[in-house]
Amino acid sequence: MHFLKDFIRINHKGETPVYIQITNGFIHCIMSGHLRKGARLPGSRKIAGLVQVNRMTVVAAYDELQAQGWIEQIPRKGAFVKEELPVLSPEPLTGTNTGQESSIKKTHFSFDEERIFPVLTSGFPPEEMLVFNDGFPDPRLTPMEELTRSMRSLSRRKTQKKYMMYGGEQGTLLLRETMAENLSDTRGLPVTPENILITKGSQMGIYLTASILLRPGDEIIVGEPGYTGATFAFRQLGASVNYVPVNEGGIDVEAIEKLCREKSIRFIYVISHHHNPTTVTLIPERRIKLLELAAEYRFAIIEDDYDYDFHYTSTPMMPMASLDKQGSVIYIGTLTKTLAPSIRIGFMIAPQNFIRAAVYLRRSIDVQGDSLMENAIAELYKDGTITRHIKKSVKIYRERRDHLCALFREELGNRVSFAVPGGGMSVWAHFPGTDLAVLSSKAREKGLVIPDGREYDNAGRKFNTARLGFASLNPEEQQKAVAILKKLLQI
Amino acid sequence: MHFLKDFIRINHKGETPVYIQITNGFIHCIMSGHLRKGARLPGSRKIAGLVQVNRMTVVAAYDELQAQGWIEQIPRKGAFVKEELPVLSPEPLTGTNTGQESSIKKTHFSFDEERIFPVLTSGFPPEEMLVFNDGFPDPRLTPMEELTRSMRSLSRRKTQKKYMMYGGEQGTLLLRETMAENLSDTRGLPVTPENILITKGSQMGIYLTASILLRPGDEIIVGEPGYTGATFAFRQLGASVNYVPVNEGGIDVEAIEKLCREKSIRFIYVISHHHNPTTVTLIPERRIKLLELAAEYRFAIIEDDYDYDFHYTSTPMMPMASLDKQGSVIYIGTLTKTLAPSIRIGFMIAPQNFIRAAVYLRRSIDVQGDSLMENAIAELYKDGTITRHIKKSVKIYRERRDHLCALFREELGNRVSFAVPGGGMSVWAHFPGTDLAVLSSKAREKGLVIPDGREYDNAGRKFNTARLGFASLNPEEQQKAVAILKKLLQI
Repeated sequence: MHFLKDFIRINHKGETPVYIQITNGFIHCIMSGHLRKGARLPGSRKIAGLVQVNRMTVVAAYDELQAQGWIEQIPRKGAFVKEELPVLSPEPLTGTNTGQESSIKKTHFSFDEERIFPVLTSGFPPEEMLVFNDGFPDPRLTPMEELTRSMRSLSRRKTQKKYMMYGGEQGTLLLRETMAENLSDTRGLPVTPENILITKGSQMGIYLTASILLRPGDEIIVGEPGYTGATFAFRQLGASVNYVPVNEGGIDVEAIEKLCREKSIRFIYVISHHHNPTTVTLIPERRIKLLELAAEYRFAIIEDDYDYDFHYTSTPMMPMASLDKQGSVIYIGTLTKTLAPSIRIGFMIAPQNFIRAAVYLRRSIDVQGDSLMENAIAELYKDGTITRHIKKSVKIYRERRDHLCALFREELGNRVSFAVPGGGMSVWAHFPGTDLAVLSSKAREKGLVIPDGREYDNAGRKFNTARLGFASLNPEEQQKAVAILKKLLQI
Repeated sequence: MHFLKDFIRINHKGETPVYIQITNGFIHCIMSGHLRKGARLPGSRKIAGLVQVNRMTVVAAYDELQAQGWIEQIPRKGAFVKEELPVLSPEPLTGTNTGQESSIKKTHFSFDEERIFPVLTSGFPPEEMLVFNDGFPDPRLTPMEELTRSMRSLSRRKTQKKYMMYGGEQGTLLLRETMAENLSDTRGLPVTPENILITKGSQMGIYLTASILLRPGDEIIVGEPGYTGATFAFRQLGASVNYVPVNEGGIDVEAIEKLCREKSIRFIYVISHHHNPTTVTLIPERRIKLLELAAEYRFAIIEDDYDYDFHYTSTPMMPMASLDKQGSVIYIGTLTKTLAPSIRIGFMIAPQNFIRAAVYLRRSIDVQGDSLMENAIAELYKDGTITRHIKKSVKIYRERRDHLCALFREELGNRVSFAVPGGGMSVWAHFPGTDLAVLSSKAREKGLVIPDGREYDNAGRKFNTARLGFASLNPEEQQKAVAILKKLLQI
């Protein structure tokens, strides 16, 4: 049984005790068919010599094998592979069946890989790169000290221990109460804690809502160009997507009305502030009209207001949800833009029967959120930290917007065209006469990441336009970034 | 225009500036049809008198209304509701259309509420209650100091700021590398970071896997009694569920083989350690047989090993995934039992093509996890905190198991029957001659929460058996709990 040496390879530095390593080696031997049912195992002394360990270690391994049910030890007869185990045909001895095998690349079963849309997964860009991202906040401003301090202090309190348990599928009551008060006070939303579900960012609100509403083939409406992250989720869930143009006033409601007359529409997905990607805000007459259409045609409105807090030309507009008296709107918001993308706290507001369904479904997806963090966030609302942080960031981001727009005008002149966004964290910049894909790839070589425009190109149109996030670049970084663009555009 | 007073109610203590409150009041007036398009607004002085504010506040409100696009101010003529707004028929003036409306209970659109399974949502039990939960860890043992300290110190490092951004859809590379090393060392899993997806607890792994595999009507197999949280997710996703008995050796593989001969099976969901609810561990011969069947019939095995770390009678058995050389197994694990339920870190291990699909799908559901926390957990692995914590908890939980089993025997005698579980955090306890539902409701009055057994009763059988979690009750609490049971059982 010299092959045993191939299966039992001892790593004296590993975390696993040596006797378990021997145990597992024997199991691999059995599994690969080299030790058949009924086979007699070599004596412990023999194995000890073979793999250079103390005999007692082998004895412990045999006991373990017996405890786990792989072998049977019969006094004065020896140890035998259990008779109940199936007979396996031995695999050829290669380097890959010794427990040190390489990882598996492909499934043995088949599945419909085409059905899952590949999305751009960027990973974290290297430290030293300048990044015009999709319009994200600056994590250097995030009040992490306050958040971790609050989490720590809560976790020490005896009364908070229960929040480390299961039970928070809807979000903690403390956070829902706090949000209800805040949202009713600042956004005019008529909500109680029963109308709120705390989600993982706005994406989970979008996914839950669509999962509840959609049956395969259902007709829905989204703006074009629009937010790919939502459209992909809808298509994944079987929606038949109708694209409606977005212009300066937001999504085209006349086109929506026309579609409603033609077919039964399940829901309309609309971004009320700073449409992704074009940054426009939905104007009042269209908000009213949408609510009227929803009343008449009984579709649902998914109002994604991910960017509410960051409006600069006026105060943010009241959400459609706050004007909705009939129960047509599912309102989705998030703190990921307010705090940081990796702090995955979002919320959805809807009539109670809908929130109930969403809570049930959420249980199936990830059970619940991080309740202790939710309570910590509630504390930061209560002590004013979040309000102060929003005020401060709005001021800084507005300055950064103005700074970048000025730089574009001064440095890039007519090689870039854009409208100054009324809010949000990005500029929708068109590059006439430049191939954006080429520019993007050249810029990367110079240490600048800029989108190549493909992401928004649902319908295969050539936009040659990119969302350039300004919020996470300070003035100095913006100067460096624009200098790189200027050079590449040979101005 | 006296009705304006009903719409514009000033709260001087609110977070919203008074001029915005006036703005929003006017918007509600327009929305409810009381101010029609083209209507002339009263002069600012008049409104100032009506709602008792400074005139300049009203001027600011009118400017805001104009900036948002609701009215038009014409010099020397006054302010007018914009002509572009649709005409709305006025709603009757009630207390509910003044911006102070109560929350909405029901959606105006319809949706299939039946399709979403109502699950038991317990909320957090009150502080003073004793709880026999479903088998959860004791959050009083969780190394929260270490975790929050690690998060805090990471968040201060400049190099970690990027982890607060988007980019972590698969989990941070640091945590995946750390887990790959740890899982290969301790569980013999042949994994690289490309085989791992960091999830939100094991539930997300279950949901993602089932979403990828299932087409409506697909046949799958689960154990009966079994884990409702998984079965509900499968049914929600359209699976046709076949129930196969679970006995002392785990799920009945002969019954599985029989089903495989009859119909095409998409996947089998199996819990390899401490089956939920019955606590049995899958024996070696069945593990081998399952892998053989998967090879032959090309179904997928979802191996849920949520409870791996907590085995007491031997070391935990090597997962089927570590014996799977063909790519049949999707292995699901979690740290929620190791650390705390609200620390939502789990993982799934699968062939690379499957992980890729899961990462794409995950983007649609909640984009990514909390990357900073993931890195903090990786640090706790690296500095040995988690290994020490597991060792310590295994010791404590084993003692608590023994203590509870002894109490049951001594105090409750033949009124309760159970097998001492080989691991995990609960006892599967049968109460012969007692109606568990009645016992459960009486116990609650005495300050003790115990399950009523309905949760596992998928097939409508009357088990009269409950999973009684012992891990989160210390010996003293166990004594109190058993004393309550003893009294209620009138022993």
